[in-house]
Amino acid sequence: MAGRGTKKIENPGKKQALADFKVGVDNVIFSVDNEQNRLLVLLVMRDDEPFSGQWCLPGTLVRKGESLEDAAYRILAEKIKVKNLYLEQLYSFGGPGRDPREAPDSFGVRYLSVSYFAIVRFGEAELIADGVSGIAWYPIQQIPQLAFDHNKILEYGYRRLRNKLEYSPVAFDVLPEVFTLNDLYQFYTTILGENFSDYSNFRSRLLKLGFLSDTGVKVSRGAGRPASLYRFDAEAFAPLKDKPLVFI
Amino acid sequence: MAGRGTKKIENPGKKQALADFKVGVDNVIFSVDNEQNRLLVLLVMRDDEPFSGQWCLPGTLVRKGESLEDAAYRILAEKIKVKNLYLEQLYSFGGPGRDPREAPDSFGVRYLSVSYFAIVRFGEAELIADGVSGIAWYPIQQIPQLAFDHNKILEYGYRRLRNKLEYSPVAFDVLPEVFTLNDLYQFYTTILGENFSDYSNFRSRLLKLGFLSDTGVKVSRGAGRPASLYRFDAEAFAPLKDKPLVFI
Repeated sequence: MAGRGTKKIENPGKKQALADFKVGVDNVIFSVDNEQNRLLVLLVMRDDEPFSGQWCLPGTLVRKGESLEDAAYRILAEKIKVKNLYLEQLYSFGGPGRDPREAPDSFGVRYLSVSYFAIVRFGEAELIADGVSGIAWYPIQQIPQLAFDHNKILEYGYRRLRNKLEYSPVAFDVLPEVFTLNDLYQFYTTILGENFSDYSNFRSRLLKLGFLSDTGVKVSRGAGRPASLYRFDAEAFAPLKDKPLVFI
Repeated sequence: MAGRGTKKIENPGKKQALADFKVGVDNVIFSVDNEQNRLLVLLVMRDDEPFSGQWCLPGTLVRKGESLEDAAYRILAEKIKVKNLYLEQLYSFGGPGRDPREAPDSFGVRYLSVSYFAIVRFGEAELIADGVSGIAWYPIQQIPQLAFDHNKILEYGYRRLRNKLEYSPVAFDVLPEVFTLNDLYQFYTTILGENFSDYSNFRSRLLKLGFLSDTGVKVSRGAGRPASLYRFDAEAFAPLKDKPLVFI
């Protein structure tokens, strides 16, 4: 920050008071239930004021000596046991008035939220309910009114998720190790909606990109013909990593 | 933030001290000098400790009642006069130890930087040197050692810029109103480097996307054949806005 060197030109004599902050980290944690084709978001129930009894994104306030990312991982570790996950910083929400605790009669400290975006494998993720009054995977279509501005943060995270699916191989971080092309299509459809692409275009596009390798194993599901199981080939993807690419 | 509801499971009796923050906004402001084909970054010289006399990104500390975005626009308005610009939030840097002012003997307050990314039209941007000991457009290849962790923030901004060029029409926010396809190619080359694409591929790709409209006017520059002037057609681009798209 170059802060202290800044001159307020219009009012050279007047010194503006700086805001004091506590910094929170809030996680938008997504998962896809492949069996029911539902996109889920992890919510916890608050047991303190303000907004006691309301659902919110899992979050915490940053402690002395703790980095933002460490705080994000700490929340995750407290709420779910998981082996694989994708985590990145999302956005910072810091406008005045976003937290009722910052009212002038409560010391006037502002609360800034640095949000993180995570996606975890549904089959592996185990919720930890110790010491909270509620924890739940909510389907994206059924999100209730959340505490603070968390509906806005969640909306931002949902947009980022859709974007990442279009431009990056994030899906393979959270799909099972091996999958059919139909599983992959279902995963995309669950997040992006039915009309994002038809199956045969999606299939030929993905195969042409050259980083899905056929394991040689076939599975039968329901009445259809046996389908090949594929795996994501990280080595074949490596040269494409820094190229602009569209997956759908 | 769900902060206060979080339970530290391992140490149920021990209460962890929360960090206190000041929040700064630092702007990575890019411009492209179309005549000399140089990518430029705006730097200012600090005139206060710490790092007095060193270059840094233009920044400020957030004031009481001020939003993060308002602080970002305030810095811009203090440093340059500009009519068109593109501004978005970049990333938040908040690790402990990033600012020497947070040493325990200086009250232990931490400094979090929310960085913003801006790109402005070079021809229109007028620097304001009032009350600073230095302000300059530095070519990206000649960035000196900056104060704080600003080299890291700048690097992050540079990556975002390259990314935005590949996936979004941000170039048209800052190119002159009308331009030749060669101007556009030069703009891309200046930022992405010589080898990003050959001219004829770039040309046919861009024309196929259908949002560049030929003004019917031609210009002669140097010895070559007269070249058509194009303009970005926002209406033709509108239906593509939310589609995944690669520009190069």
